[in-house]
Amino acid sequence: VRRVRVDLGPRSYTVAVGAGILDGLGAAVARLGPGRRALVVADAAVAATYGAAARQSLEGAGLTAALATLPSGEASKTLGETARLYDAALDAGLDRRSWIVAVGGGVTGDVAGFAAATFLRGVPFVQVPTTLLAQVDASVGGKVAVDHPRGKNLIGAFHQPSLVWADVATLDTLPAGELRSGLAEAVKHGVLADAGYLAMLRRRAAVLLAGDREALARVVAGSVRIKAAVVAADEREEGGPRSHLNLGHTVGHALEAALDFGGLRHGEAVAIGMVAAGRLALGRGLWSEAWQAELVDLLGRLGLPTAIPAVSAARIMGALKLDKKSREGRVRWVLPVRPGAVTLCDAVEPAEVGRLLLSMGALP
Amino acid sequence: VRRVRVDLGPRSYTVAVGAGILDGLGAAVARLGPGRRALVVADAAVAATYGAAARQSLEGAGLTAALATLPSGEASKTLGETARLYDAALDAGLDRRSWIVAVGGGVTGDVAGFAAATFLRGVPFVQVPTTLLAQVDASVGGKVAVDHPRGKNLIGAFHQPSLVWADVATLDTLPAGELRSGLAEAVKHGVLADAGYLAMLRRRAAVLLAGDREALARVVAGSVRIKAAVVAADEREEGGPRSHLNLGHTVGHALEAALDFGGLRHGEAVAIGMVAAGRLALGRGLWSEAWQAELVDLLGRLGLPTAIPAVSAARIMGALKLDKKSREGRVRWVLPVRPGAVTLCDAVEPAEVGRLLLSMGALP
Repeated sequence: VRRVRVDLGPRSYTVAVGAGILDGLGAAVARLGPGRRALVVADAAVAATYGAAARQSLEGAGLTAALATLPSGEASKTLGETARLYDAALDAGLDRRSWIVAVGGGVTGDVAGFAAATFLRGVPFVQVPTTLLAQVDASVGGKVAVDHPRGKNLIGAFHQPSLVWADVATLDTLPAGELRSGLAEAVKHGVLADAGYLAMLRRRAAVLLAGDREALARVVAGSVRIKAAVVAADEREEGGPRSHLNLGHTVGHALEAALDFGGLRHGEAVAIGMVAAGRLALGRGLWSEAWQAELVDLLGRLGLPTAIPAVSAARIMGALKLDKKSREGRVRWVLPVRPGAVTLCDAVEPAEVGRLLLSMGALP
Repeated sequence: VRRVRVDLGPRSYTVAVGAGILDGLGAAVARLGPGRRALVVADAAVAATYGAAARQSLEGAGLTAALATLPSGEASKTLGETARLYDAALDAGLDRRSWIVAVGGGVTGDVAGFAAATFLRGVPFVQVPTTLLAQVDASVGGKVAVDHPRGKNLIGAFHQPSLVWADVATLDTLPAGELRSGLAEAVKHGVLADAGYLAMLRRRAAVLLAGDREALARVVAGSVRIKAAVVAADEREEGGPRSHLNLGHTVGHALEAALDFGGLRHGEAVAIGMVAAGRLALGRGLWSEAWQAELVDLLGRLGLPTAIPAVSAARIMGALKLDKKSREGRVRWVLPVRPGAVTLCDAVEPAEVGRLLLSMGALP
């Protein structure tokens, strides 16, 4: 088992990464605190398998654990589903020391985490990510949220987990497209912080896509290490490096929104968004053609898209205007400056973005 | 203007107390941070007066301020009303640096504060309390929440304000019953932390009830000073003195719940709850008959009730079981040990509580 520490003073926690470690969850939770009740919130797709296993492990360690199921998909990220979890938490008799345990992908972690952040003004929270995207990225860092009809993640909190328990054996049952989507966030971590990690992803692309557990565990631990350092330096995204994690997410989120969150997986949208960020950086002399070609090549090896699908540039531009990370109306872009380093830039005119989107395949 | 600092490291803030200071709100907010947009959330009862004045003051300081109205009363403490505030915040174009400004009593501060805690994962929050209860207690300390059908304040967060702006001139229009209700929390502060403050309340009871601004400002600043020290020592109620602030609230909340939150004002319920806590302390030899008589006398001078109205002991006991502050099913009581000091006790059997409630006037 690889253990990565997220260093946040009194809110520090461990991310455990390994293959076949789900059985050990209960003992790990029992060691962490005095709470003896838990609510396991599982994505419907894995409730009968990993959700039940997590519950069984908790019960085996002497806890009383209930299981609540969350319908799969982004459509579950609502205040209404959160309210259902409050009901389940009350039914399960949770108190302030009890655990809410999320078993699933980013959506499950977001909704269960937001419930944990707000139930009784905050109860301890454990992440058991079962998608690669959640293991390398979403389960670490404490961002939890639900969506508003006018935008993703507009309602949320910072609520750090007490433990992240990432079992790469759960990725055996993950659809191939979801595996690729997770690898896009790993590429992002390499581009923003670690050229060596990026090179490793290139070397191991084939075994990663084949689902090799050892290779995947190395990627999960590597990405978590990068993200942990960023989060430790800027927990609440207050002017420090945390905003770097938005690399690829400006165009990425806007693309997802323009496609009504139905046409692309999150990681696919981020892959396209990273290509767009690279192009903007190129145009400013911050980034080289060779690095851009390497980025596009790596994304291609990982089966990720690098061009914009059939959606109008105007729709993407409309979604960009609602970007949550804007300040007084200006979007803040994260642009690569070399493999392993990025910078922030808010001097990007809409006309330039419009031309870029068209050149990347958006419809006029 | 009296200024009391709430010392919470990076989350420290000032509570300003004065008479006729509402006009200065905008300038104070503009000095605090870079945000240039604000959403004023005002209780419907004061929206046209203090809400409009707050908005005008913000606009006068160069901010763009919108006004949202919250219906008066506890029934507004819902996720649904919070969702209305998210809509208003989006309509007003708020970003992460923008302000949410609560103008009203505890309910307004709770709902607007919960919206501020969760909109865009948290935006800066300003409290402009216009009831004595909110000025002496609710506006300080960062507890924000909405209710769940099964209990008060079950959904919430800790979100410290950036500024509390308490204008005692707004109390001129406060109903007398609301003034008395606020004084109950001031008595609570004296009992748990400061015998001298308690003596001052006794001496000034008559002028306070007459609405004397200077006397009220002194009480607000005195209570805030006590609460600020408690909150600074135990921001998130994690085993430290913050739980002492629940003095009188165990029976108080249960009484309110048993009366469906319609029969008693919050402070009135807390007054009765303090008498009950005193009686439990007496029975344990922790507290004297003389101190209990003084407490009952002071509450009486302030026009506050000290006996339980016509509601059945069984209903109150039922509500006690759902107490949010319980641990694994045991209620934690705050009991006075002398004027200015309290202790925690969870060794109180339901049968003893039942007898106490009956002896204080509850119906069998």
